[in-house]
Amino acid sequence: MGKENFVEQIADIEKDFPQWYTDVVVKTGLVDYGPVKGTMVIRPYGYAIWENIQSELDKRFKATGHKNAYFPLLIPMSYFTKEAEHVEGFAPEVAVVTHAGGEELAEPLAIRPTSETIFGSMYSKWIQSYRDLPVLINQWANVMRWEKTTRPFLRTSEFLWQEGHTAHSSEEEAMEETMKMLGVYKEFAENCLAIPVITGRKTEKEKFAGAVATFGMEAMMKDGKSLQAGTTHYLGQNFAKAFEVKYLDKDGVQKYVYTSSWGVSTRLIGALIMAHGDSRGLVIPPVVAPVQAVIIPIAAKKAGVLEKCEEVRALLEKAGVRVECDTTDASPGWKFNEWEMKGVPLRIELGPRDIEAGKALIFRRDTLEKTEYSLSDIAETVKSLLGAVQKDMLEAARVRRDSRIVYADSLKELLGGVEGGNFVKAGWCGCRECEDKIKAETAATARVFAEGEHSEKCAVCGKQAKHTVIFARAY
Amino acid sequence: MGKENFVEQIADIEKDFPQWYTDVVVKTGLVDYGPVKGTMVIRPYGYAIWENIQSELDKRFKATGHKNAYFPLLIPMSYFTKEAEHVEGFAPEVAVVTHAGGEELAEPLAIRPTSETIFGSMYSKWIQSYRDLPVLINQWANVMRWEKTTRPFLRTSEFLWQEGHTAHSSEEEAMEETMKMLGVYKEFAENCLAIPVITGRKTEKEKFAGAVATFGMEAMMKDGKSLQAGTTHYLGQNFAKAFEVKYLDKDGVQKYVYTSSWGVSTRLIGALIMAHGDSRGLVIPPVVAPVQAVIIPIAAKKAGVLEKCEEVRALLEKAGVRVECDTTDASPGWKFNEWEMKGVPLRIELGPRDIEAGKALIFRRDTLEKTEYSLSDIAETVKSLLGAVQKDMLEAARVRRDSRIVYADSLKELLGGVEGGNFVKAGWCGCRECEDKIKAETAATARVFAEGEHSEKCAVCGKQAKHTVIFARAY
Repeated sequence: MGKENFVEQIADIEKDFPQWYTDVVVKTGLVDYGPVKGTMVIRPYGYAIWENIQSELDKRFKATGHKNAYFPLLIPMSYFTKEAEHVEGFAPEVAVVTHAGGEELAEPLAIRPTSETIFGSMYSKWIQSYRDLPVLINQWANVMRWEKTTRPFLRTSEFLWQEGHTAHSSEEEAMEETMKMLGVYKEFAENCLAIPVITGRKTEKEKFAGAVATFGMEAMMKDGKSLQAGTTHYLGQNFAKAFEVKYLDKDGVQKYVYTSSWGVSTRLIGALIMAHGDSRGLVIPPVVAPVQAVIIPIAAKKAGVLEKCEEVRALLEKAGVRVECDTTDASPGWKFNEWEMKGVPLRIELGPRDIEAGKALIFRRDTLEKTEYSLSDIAETVKSLLGAVQKDMLEAARVRRDSRIVYADSLKELLGGVEGGNFVKAGWCGCRECEDKIKAETAATARVFAEGEHSEKCAVCGKQAKHTVIFARAY
Repeated sequence: MGKENFVEQIADIEKDFPQWYTDVVVKTGLVDYGPVKGTMVIRPYGYAIWENIQSELDKRFKATGHKNAYFPLLIPMSYFTKEAEHVEGFAPEVAVVTHAGGEELAEPLAIRPTSETIFGSMYSKWIQSYRDLPVLINQWANVMRWEKTTRPFLRTSEFLWQEGHTAHSSEEEAMEETMKMLGVYKEFAENCLAIPVITGRKTEKEKFAGAVATFGMEAMMKDGKSLQAGTTHYLGQNFAKAFEVKYLDKDGVQKYVYTSSWGVSTRLIGALIMAHGDSRGLVIPPVVAPVQAVIIPIAAKKAGVLEKCEEVRALLEKAGVRVECDTTDASPGWKFNEWEMKGVPLRIELGPRDIEAGKALIFRRDTLEKTEYSLSDIAETVKSLLGAVQKDMLEAARVRRDSRIVYADSLKELLGGVEGGNFVKAGWCGCRECEDKIKAETAATARVFAEGEHSEKCAVCGKQAKHTVIFARAY
């Protein structure tokens, strides 16, 4: 990657946020457009972020007792019809294989848009007794949903994700799992992506096709819009009944299991770009940054400079820092721009005078501050700075978001709120008509219920409110 | 997994090797059959082996300068026709998407059987100058090849693999990469899978469709058949010309790049099963074993037994051993059988008398030896035993294989050799007729050229031999 030219113009983030996003993802080498409409190529710099996300999440999944597996890509179309809401939700988006091995297939096959059905069909075979429960399986896979309008990472016909599918003997346990994984996602989003998220239950209209209840985590992007960054679903016995997943309980009675599913995807990369990026480009939180610190030699041809840079690089690498030394023949200024655009958390500048003084200048990508540090304990300094960047990025994002949550008592206030780039809390009576009206008039949708808050009146109809809901325009 | 019942009959490995294989893969919970013909579900116990394989290989790919990326699953059918040999080789096996999003597609799309074409199309966009070279990218992905006869891990319509695709400015460098990765595969196969492999160039008939030269690594299975465990391809400028991958060289001239590709797949799991398994089931080498040591409490209800088992488990886990303690209520004998069938390298038996004596009995799955060890330095003992198992398994496999490599001077000897379950070295004149004749009359194929060996005469036609070739029946 180091050899490619990334210093190119990106659109003004204040004036044209969508164009800024497109420029940044393509020009920093995160992604490119595939030949088939709506597909993306995740390039090494983008994929390295995904690898870091995977490694952090996978650790958490395993610590909570889950094991990974791999289920087939192709699902018989007939499977989708077994759960009525599910087929309605997903059939229109499915890509279908009709021919294979030079012949037309007897039954068309869907490329998985999600795998509840095929997990269900296998679980019905594997689960016989209460001793087989719970089953806690996750898979890392590609999925396909044919979308009309696509944007890299945010909405692509193919994307990468993980999908957990669990089966339990009781409603309580399945619900507990659903909430536990929502908590795992939230902790991960905050501590790894430095994105504060609001978690909560979704409305019927916004829930997953086939779920009893869906819970989401919503992240505020820099334009004030919301991005659904992950969801967990309590599926009740819907899929258990559709696929006959039954077990013999201790009391000798055959019972249906209760299931959950939960997933996050490469969308998370879009989320971190739009939550943290600025006019210079990407700002990547250290935990998931492919390169955490870059060393730029100043006056590289002067005796001892490159040697010292390499010495520091080796020291940092040994200390577990993902570090690169940019020894290409571009100018320092050019390199500064390039690595700032690529969002590397720390830049270490090392020139003859710094080396003589036993110092290095370190630039923080998040605050744009440049400070001089002693070279004598540079590894400790860099590690501590990376920790500070991670923490401060979350805090800054939280302050930004909290300053943009407003309350609305009427549809007019709600419209004003979302037009101002805010999350808007408002009372809602619970009826679909009011929810639809909000969408029609403000382009905002119900993101999640604001847990623990109780408004008096519905902002639309004025009737008794059942819930306080966070409304926002969303990706 | 621990809750499922794996102690079931498996076929006699000596009498019915194919049935033994099928029994073992299904009954140990490695794999199950998917609903679509030829597909497999890789269950947690099997997928954990794949995760260990991935982690070992990925480390090696990165250490040799490669980065991971992700390219789209769907490839326009027209791409395949751009390289003449390639389309001939792969078109018959392709699964085709004709409909998506409720509409018929303008152009049918292939589910990737391999990705040279789509990498080529993107590289033509990314590579402009000699400064952009080399490009060293790998991807971990699923691929689809519609096969008539399928067997779990060995030949399935969908499988998981990694595919490296590199582009270089010279033939020498691309060839060096091709050989380097063959070396990486060989070192991995021997040190991680404990499988000795023979590497070498393949004949024209056996080479990858679209390659200039293919190199393979061949592993001997317990029935004497060969399994192609990995291949690397020198592609010359075939795909560069098909996809116009050109760069401006230092001398100001536009030139085509030279490319390589290389891959291994979930077939490797089949390889390690058939290279090491025995009448009791799987024997998994420690480096890739999901569980490296299992602790079985003896007289578990006696005071202190479970506590001691847990203490030892925690100690081993802390020492980096993948360890489980089987506290289910089955009998020790039942557990012995179960974990032996699952191929766990070490079993640690701990009962009241052992504990009192400060000892533990440790059973080695590879040699079936049971030895008493002191509990005082149990972690060191287990780690050292795991190292010994790994080393001895490779050595045993090497002795087995080397005793089954024979020489043949005639077609009759060649037939006798392969019927006896051997790899057969024989001279070959280099003509296709003789190669075809060997296959027709012995069901053996040319696996690889035996490097550095020179036979005098072709075993078929008696003319001057060009190569010494290793022939074998193969999976």
